[in-house]
Amino acid sequence: MMNNKYCVIMAGGIGTRFWPKSRQRMPKQFLDILGTGKSFIRHTFERFLPLVPAENFLVVTNYKYKDLVLEHLPELKEEQILCEPIGRNTAPCIAYATYTLMKKNPQAEMIVTPADHLILNEEDFRKIISECVSFAADHDAMMTVGIKPTRPDTGYGYIQVSNQEPISKVKCFTEKPNLELAQTFLQCGEFFWNSGIFIWKGTTIVEAFKKYLPEHHALFSEVEKADTPEAERAVIEKAFSECRAISIDYGIMEKADNVYVRCGEFGWSDIGTWGSVYQHSRKDRYANAVPEEGCYLYDVRSSIVSIPKDKIAVVSGLKEYIIVDTDDVLMICPRSEEQNIKKFIDEVKFHDGDKHI
Amino acid sequence: MMNNKYCVIMAGGIGTRFWPKSRQRMPKQFLDILGTGKSFIRHTFERFLPLVPAENFLVVTNYKYKDLVLEHLPELKEEQILCEPIGRNTAPCIAYATYTLMKKNPQAEMIVTPADHLILNEEDFRKIISECVSFAADHDAMMTVGIKPTRPDTGYGYIQVSNQEPISKVKCFTEKPNLELAQTFLQCGEFFWNSGIFIWKGTTIVEAFKKYLPEHHALFSEVEKADTPEAERAVIEKAFSECRAISIDYGIMEKADNVYVRCGEFGWSDIGTWGSVYQHSRKDRYANAVPEEGCYLYDVRSSIVSIPKDKIAVVSGLKEYIIVDTDDVLMICPRSEEQNIKKFIDEVKFHDGDKHI
Repeated sequence: MMNNKYCVIMAGGIGTRFWPKSRQRMPKQFLDILGTGKSFIRHTFERFLPLVPAENFLVVTNYKYKDLVLEHLPELKEEQILCEPIGRNTAPCIAYATYTLMKKNPQAEMIVTPADHLILNEEDFRKIISECVSFAADHDAMMTVGIKPTRPDTGYGYIQVSNQEPISKVKCFTEKPNLELAQTFLQCGEFFWNSGIFIWKGTTIVEAFKKYLPEHHALFSEVEKADTPEAERAVIEKAFSECRAISIDYGIMEKADNVYVRCGEFGWSDIGTWGSVYQHSRKDRYANAVPEEGCYLYDVRSSIVSIPKDKIAVVSGLKEYIIVDTDDVLMICPRSEEQNIKKFIDEVKFHDGDKHI
Repeated sequence: MMNNKYCVIMAGGIGTRFWPKSRQRMPKQFLDILGTGKSFIRHTFERFLPLVPAENFLVVTNYKYKDLVLEHLPELKEEQILCEPIGRNTAPCIAYATYTLMKKNPQAEMIVTPADHLILNEEDFRKIISECVSFAADHDAMMTVGIKPTRPDTGYGYIQVSNQEPISKVKCFTEKPNLELAQTFLQCGEFFWNSGIFIWKGTTIVEAFKKYLPEHHALFSEVEKADTPEAERAVIEKAFSECRAISIDYGIMEKADNVYVRCGEFGWSDIGTWGSVYQHSRKDRYANAVPEEGCYLYDVRSSIVSIPKDKIAVVSGLKEYIIVDTDDVLMICPRSEEQNIKKFIDEVKFHDGDKHI
């Protein structure tokens, strides 16, 4: 019997937020920034593997990363990697995966997940995902997973629930609120972080594309008619070049009225900043997040050090710094100034071009 | 006509004072720590080349560095590199060079110089050296070069002069005085830094070895009787294994009564610490000594940065730091704590063995 459950991993990020450790040629999803022994994408794959057979995974990524994906997930076949010619945010990414899946199995039930998040309690997480899958199978519902917030984070999207049931209809989405609003959200108890994980039947999301993003539907549904890989490729190239870049949240979730959220606590972080890497790393007795070997620290406190394997770092007299050393870039920056990394990258790019980016 | 002038470059140092830039396998004399485009030994060679023909140079070094010397001084033939089996301080080094030269040319006039000092005003320096060579040719004198001190440095040796003539008999040598004494020396006007550069006739220094270091004379003068390279090698191996390690200053200069000094000012430094590297490097407008390319500094002041070619450093928020990055070691240390480098090396050695030293 055909297994109708599919997992779509969105791995198209080209972010350089963890520069110089993340690079255009090696973005965060392929890194092991927390030193766990596995990349984010590998963790994501293994997290869903108890729920979805390996042959039912799809990874959507930029064509440049196809080989990297296959290297990190050797269980997958080449045809399970969907290559975006260009990043167009999550709606086109999901459309590509959806219509490709529907062509293969119109009964498809989909779990859509980012490739680069941290989940500490995977058992609890899978229980919640399973509930969502069941709910979505029985309803024409677009499910999302909400995280109980622990701080007034202004970098996340928030979901307001209609009631306190485990699975609640969504009242409202709010993208990145200011601090005051985020504080209100935290106190109110009705707001949850948007994890960016979605669960739905293929038929449900197709209906939503038809209704809310008809252009995307028109462009991407062409893939179902393509009768050769070359024809499919041509449809996708055309679709990505012509479609509007838009997030699934903004394009569909915020507009639809069949959106539900299952809220939970399972130790989630999108590990979006060096600060969150620091927070989730094991610390030595001076609160330094450093590799187990190779760091010689003298009067160093509350700092994070990342060095290449086989290299050593001798550091003296620093407090609350980020030190990231790679083959071709060394970055030393106070933790309080990590938001400047973007500026650093721009200046390096301006002077040295792309080679260190 | 045979040119009797010889230059002996003492290049046996295995110092790790500039660790991690200097290494056991790549000591300071082979580095371009100041970013001048040439190594210290290359500068030393070129400094004396207007006075001494290339074929009259000898370099005394540890056998491990023979190839490095030939690489930096391709003008020299292999037989111009004298290989010490083990470092035994300057007296054995000079004995080795002296008896090797005397065998070749008993009329030899010698200039002996460290390989790794900085001289800013080379024209003035050569004038002074030429004066010394003339004086030594006409007298049975052991000449040394004194430097007018500019600060009460406690790391140098001091030479007290008997009078204020350009060439004066030496009254007294004082090795590394304490700060109080060094301050007195500076005020007094009779004391000069010992540059470690010596000028004498071969016959003069041989007489001094006979008188003050007779064991060294006995061991090293055997080289004159050796009639094959193999026999010479055997003499040298035996001499170094049996001779006492002693400096030429302590063994001969402090005891002899025919020691003269020519004092001068020509921008000398032994570049013995990162502090002196900093002092002699070109600084940017925030007083940072950094390479011309590859450094992106934000709110960084009075610091020194050394990175490998083709690597970039992005540094934010540091004041008075030493940042030295090499292929396998990164060191970040306040300038005020550079004396701790020795301690760092010891700990790295203890945990990781010699591979990073």
